[in-house]
Amino acid sequence: MHIKEFQNLMRQLYFERDNERGPKGTLDWLEDEFEELREALEEGDINAIKEEFADVLAWLASLANLLDLDLEKAAISKYPNKCPKCKKKPCECQF
Amino acid sequence: MHIKEFQNLMRQLYFERDNERGPKGTLDWLEDEFEELREALEEGDINAIKEEFADVLAWLASLANLLDLDLEKAAISKYPNKCPKCKKKPCECQF
Repeated sequence: MHIKEFQNLMRQLYFERDNERGPKGTLDWLEDEFEELREALEEGDINAIKEEFADVLAWLASLANLLDLDLEKAAISKYPNKCPKCKKKPCECQF
Repeated sequence: MHIKEFQNLMRQLYFERDNERGPKGTLDWLEDEFEELREALEEGDINAIKEEFADVLAWLASLANLLDLDLEKAAISKYPNKCPKCKKKPCECQF
C-alpha cells in the first residue's frame, strides 16, 4: 500500500471528526499514541506493539490531512534514495 | 511509494547506525523528532513542517526495522479499509 493510499484511507475514515477536532487536538492525540507505543514497547506485547505502530502512522496521516500535506511527497522529497545530510546510501554521516 | 519501500529505504540508509543505537535510543530520537514537528507547527514554516513529517515517518520506520516489524502490514492489519472500532467507513464511532 502506498503511503498516499494509507493517508487517503485515513481521510475517508476520519476526516470529518479530525476536522472538528482541529490540528492542535490531533497533534495532542498523536502524542498520546506515541506514549502508548512507548508503553507497549516496555511491556513487550508484540501484538500491542504492532497496533501502536499502526496508530502512530494513522494519526500522523490524519494530521497531514488536516494540513493538506502529502506525507508521501514529503517523505520522498526529504529522503530521495540517499541520506539528506551526506547524500550517500548507506548514510556515511559522522556523529 | 509503498510504506514497505520507504521502510526498506530507511533500512538501507540507516540500519547499521540504528542497530548500534538500539531500540531504546531510537525511540528517544523518534520522540525528539515529534517535538521538532510540534515546534515547526507552532512556527508555521511549511517547508520545515514537511521535513519534520518526513522525519517522524523515517524514525518510525527505523524503529520498526530494529524490531523486525513490517509497518505496512501492521497498518493494513489495524485499518483494513474500515474503522477498527465501529467497522464502518467512514467511521461512525460515538465519542
